[in-house]
Amino acid sequence: MKETDYKTYIDEDELPQAYYNVRADMITAAGGHDHAPILHPGTLQAVSVADMEPIFCTELAKQELNTKDRFIDIPGELIDFYRMYRPSPLVRARFLERLLKTPARIYYKYEGNNTSGSHKLNSAIAQGYYAKEQGLRGLTTETGAGQWGTAMAMAAAYFELELEVFMVKVSYEQKPHRKTIMQTFGASVVPSPSNTTEVGRKMLDEFPDSSGSLGTAISEAVERALSTEGYRYVLGSVLNQVLLHQSIIGLETKIAMEKIDEYPDIVIGCAGGGSNLGGLMAPFIEDRLAGRQSPYFIAVESASCPSLTRGRFAYDFCDTGQVTPLAKMYTLGSGFIPSANHAGGLRYHGMSPILSQLYHDGFLDEARAVDQISVFDAALQFARTEGTLPAPESSHAIRVAIDEAIKCRESGEEKVILFGCTGNGYFDLTAFEQYLNGTMTDSIPTDEDLARGFASIPSLEGIQ
Amino acid sequence: MKETDYKTYIDEDELPQAYYNVRADMITAAGGHDHAPILHPGTLQAVSVADMEPIFCTELAKQELNTKDRFIDIPGELIDFYRMYRPSPLVRARFLERLLKTPARIYYKYEGNNTSGSHKLNSAIAQGYYAKEQGLRGLTTETGAGQWGTAMAMAAAYFELELEVFMVKVSYEQKPHRKTIMQTFGASVVPSPSNTTEVGRKMLDEFPDSSGSLGTAISEAVERALSTEGYRYVLGSVLNQVLLHQSIIGLETKIAMEKIDEYPDIVIGCAGGGSNLGGLMAPFIEDRLAGRQSPYFIAVESASCPSLTRGRFAYDFCDTGQVTPLAKMYTLGSGFIPSANHAGGLRYHGMSPILSQLYHDGFLDEARAVDQISVFDAALQFARTEGTLPAPESSHAIRVAIDEAIKCRESGEEKVILFGCTGNGYFDLTAFEQYLNGTMTDSIPTDEDLARGFASIPSLEGIQ
Repeated sequence: MKETDYKTYIDEDELPQAYYNVRADMITAAGGHDHAPILHPGTLQAVSVADMEPIFCTELAKQELNTKDRFIDIPGELIDFYRMYRPSPLVRARFLERLLKTPARIYYKYEGNNTSGSHKLNSAIAQGYYAKEQGLRGLTTETGAGQWGTAMAMAAAYFELELEVFMVKVSYEQKPHRKTIMQTFGASVVPSPSNTTEVGRKMLDEFPDSSGSLGTAISEAVERALSTEGYRYVLGSVLNQVLLHQSIIGLETKIAMEKIDEYPDIVIGCAGGGSNLGGLMAPFIEDRLAGRQSPYFIAVESASCPSLTRGRFAYDFCDTGQVTPLAKMYTLGSGFIPSANHAGGLRYHGMSPILSQLYHDGFLDEARAVDQISVFDAALQFARTEGTLPAPESSHAIRVAIDEAIKCRESGEEKVILFGCTGNGYFDLTAFEQYLNGTMTDSIPTDEDLARGFASIPSLEGIQ
Repeated sequence: MKETDYKTYIDEDELPQAYYNVRADMITAAGGHDHAPILHPGTLQAVSVADMEPIFCTELAKQELNTKDRFIDIPGELIDFYRMYRPSPLVRARFLERLLKTPARIYYKYEGNNTSGSHKLNSAIAQGYYAKEQGLRGLTTETGAGQWGTAMAMAAAYFELELEVFMVKVSYEQKPHRKTIMQTFGASVVPSPSNTTEVGRKMLDEFPDSSGSLGTAISEAVERALSTEGYRYVLGSVLNQVLLHQSIIGLETKIAMEKIDEYPDIVIGCAGGGSNLGGLMAPFIEDRLAGRQSPYFIAVESASCPSLTRGRFAYDFCDTGQVTPLAKMYTLGSGFIPSANHAGGLRYHGMSPILSQLYHDGFLDEARAVDQISVFDAALQFARTEGTLPAPESSHAIRVAIDEAIKCRESGEEKVILFGCTGNGYFDLTAFEQYLNGTMTDSIPTDEDLARGFASIPSLEGIQ
């Protein structure tokens, strides 16, 4: 990298040819001991590929349970698609550094330069590929803010698969353009809870004015996949397979940093379900698990949905309807509902089992919860200096990157700070408007709010 | 470029260090004869820098009238900003080629990967720079669909200038997010016609329900700049200075194509005011004017605002209020109002004087008007195969690129087709929704519509 360069692109033929499967190394680091497996909700036994096949594409079910292979080859047709929008740029935030007068060198991996607007496309296209390979007719999924649904719609269009998206109702109503962009790519979009599924009807009977939740939308999408011939269900975060696919973010980043002879001292990522941070940190946590030099890892979550910082490490359902398998993770309980005035995504009650285990074992060093107003402060500062309007989710990482850079100014340390800028904020302008006109408030759950959520965590005698 | 590559990026230190000023070569090609100069609306004499200084930044007025210097250096601070988001990628549309089964090689220069969402930022940041250099306090401008206003808001934020944007009222109301993104970058946004200017009040008196027009918004912005201490007016298209700045698009493209040993047979750009096509074709029209091998140039305009294909080559005002200087250009008359059901930008009554002269003289080979439904057909085809949601404006060029590629399939010719993909369509989803739900119609003006517009073209005895 020349002294004046801002962006580092690796060449297209340097793109990673295999995903990194961190679970294999986690087991090695734990002395061969497998971590808490995913449990079948009926039998409470570890699920098998056969158990998962009715819901998930077979190859994806295998990836979900794969604890042996450190690397899994990326099929050529998938690499071909990645070449359409990858490599994503690794950007040196020189303008931000100048503004902050920090001796730190700040880098961010920017995943917002594709039409889905975020990193979600990395896993969406992989899941679409395996569905097509299996000869499926269609897929169902859920979406909250809409990033994942848009990414999945692009993937389904590319592989000519049908797609039904259950979109959390509050987002469906507040973000009509998200619906339109999914429809532009041929997807069918249903507001959730809907009267098209049993779970949805039950929810509407109980709470007719429900504005929906990700957990409910997941339940609806799973039900629809199970009841539709030639369909399977796909999910955009939390799962092991998703972190596997997202490892492409970190693998690319590491290659780019090697080109410019840098290695991060701190790696920062926002964490809702955990797929972005899990992906960004992948090759660096590989270093950590192998006992080599490695960065200090910080997961940044929303103070309104603080699964790592205030949640419990326990087996819990992945959805509100409690139809999915149980995963051991940091969770607020599938019944936890974040405040409605929370704007910035990251509203999932649980956290990736991989990140949860890494955090529990001290490999993921720190979780930090930040308030949304301070997040939008950071977003504006970043937009006006770096010229990129970040997604609110990404802005959680920006907040902490700025805080760490300011610490460096005070200490004089020339740390290398790397963060994930997961997407752009084009579809979040309603939230920016609330911030600008002063109607945004913080939305931190009380201990009572948390207790209500914890009450929904199942008590599994002898397992928890 | 390797056989499998999709994108060609030049290095940051290969970025052009000077803008190309086509007017110098146009005069040489015409045997030293200057083309129709811009006229002062009062005296009907060629304007001087002194005439323009009350409205425009001095350096920009000089650029506007510069017919001597073939290249104008780009200041270092500007190049520094360009490095933030440039070079933009030159993309080989391999997926589209496969879909069309064409032997043609299709390339597009994609300008949508910056927060303003389009090529407009290239000139906005230049105009902001010269305003800052001159020690100005603030700027005024107008915006239609909002791309230019967003770009100018980013530029003003970067140089810490005040900015007042007069936004065509229909867009202000239909695109609230465009307003918010401009405000996010600190701009003040006023719906036009407004009661804050004389021109606006006059328009509102006459047409209280006016939904506004670009011409009126220009008049308001000019009036405000003239009446505010330390302010000047900036414009995002049409002007010579804007085409000068936009030459960076073509200059980058030519460097990238040389890297992969290609040279276009056809260059296609959408043309509203003409800044994008003028910029993209710059180094190739340089070849044409010098008598070297050069591409076939196609300007694509909207059939609803067909200034090149159905307009007159005449002196006309640049604005509806008729306060601006007169330029000789292809025009439908400053009183022409495109149909309200026209969705896709490109609604300006005139055309860049440079492009107009080049077209008149046969250097710009062809102008083609396309209907909006066929434009959105092309947009969807492009989005679903190439994975990028294009702006409706850009989709005009995509339409013709696809048509030309299909001709190649029929003729078997392996032509190299280059088009400008000027921006993304994130803020145009209302139009995509109309297209998808079948409520979009074409909107071609009748001869009577045109006659009403032509009646507003001033009759300048002895000059026209």
